[in-house]
Amino acid sequence: MDRIPILRMGDVLLVTIQVELHDQLAMTLQDDLAARISATSARGVLLDISALEIVDSFIGRMIATISGIASVMDARTVVVGMQPAVAITLVELGLSLPGVLTALDVERGMHLLGITRSGDADHAQ
Amino acid sequence: MDRIPILRMGDVLLVTIQVELHDQLAMTLQDDLAARISATSARGVLLDISALEIVDSFIGRMIATISGIASVMDARTVVVGMQPAVAITLVELGLSLPGVLTALDVERGMHLLGITRSGDADHAQ
Repeated sequence: MDRIPILRMGDVLLVTIQVELHDQLAMTLQDDLAARISATSARGVLLDISALEIVDSFIGRMIATISGIASVMDARTVVVGMQPAVAITLVELGLSLPGVLTALDVERGMHLLGITRSGDADHAQ
Repeated sequence: MDRIPILRMGDVLLVTIQVELHDQLAMTLQDDLAARISATSARGVLLDISALEIVDSFIGRMIATISGIASVMDARTVVVGMQPAVAITLVELGLSLPGVLTALDVERGMHLLGITRSGDADHAQ
């Protein structure tokens, strides 16, 4: 596992995190994502963490960093799919992911971003 | 890693395979996918294999099985994101994934399925 795939859906990039993120993988993801935002002019990033059963301070920091990078490149980041137990732990640990938008699932995340797939642009609400 | 997340986007279920699939994980994916197709009335399944550098006969068989299950549940399966080297190897090995649709990326896969996200239904072409 060298890198985490980044899927493009119109103006949105979708990243599904399934594996444990070690330092190098997290760095590669940040680099890849910045390059893809630049190459595709993406307006939003959906970070799906539904497969994660633990979100510690390292992952919390990585999410904040990715969100910050995307933000300065004019793309908004939404974290989707957080498991209930993860949400409880995050709040208990005081890791409240400041400045990061969250949504229950990919569809709500898309809705939050207010972005439709390319080709649907005429029908954007 | 107990299970591979299945993301719902309107009428489509998206599965990104990032980890090596052992028997149990493949079985769980088949079960989960069948349950989700039933629960969500999904019309299509996108199987993203862009992270896979090797597709052997085991994975080829799993893809064919998933496609078969989805098919009898009235959902079409499209395999997307296949790396060039994987395509070459598949053909050289004679594993041509009969009956399985393929597309270059998620967007083309969506287009191939001819399915828009829910809420866009009025604008379907």
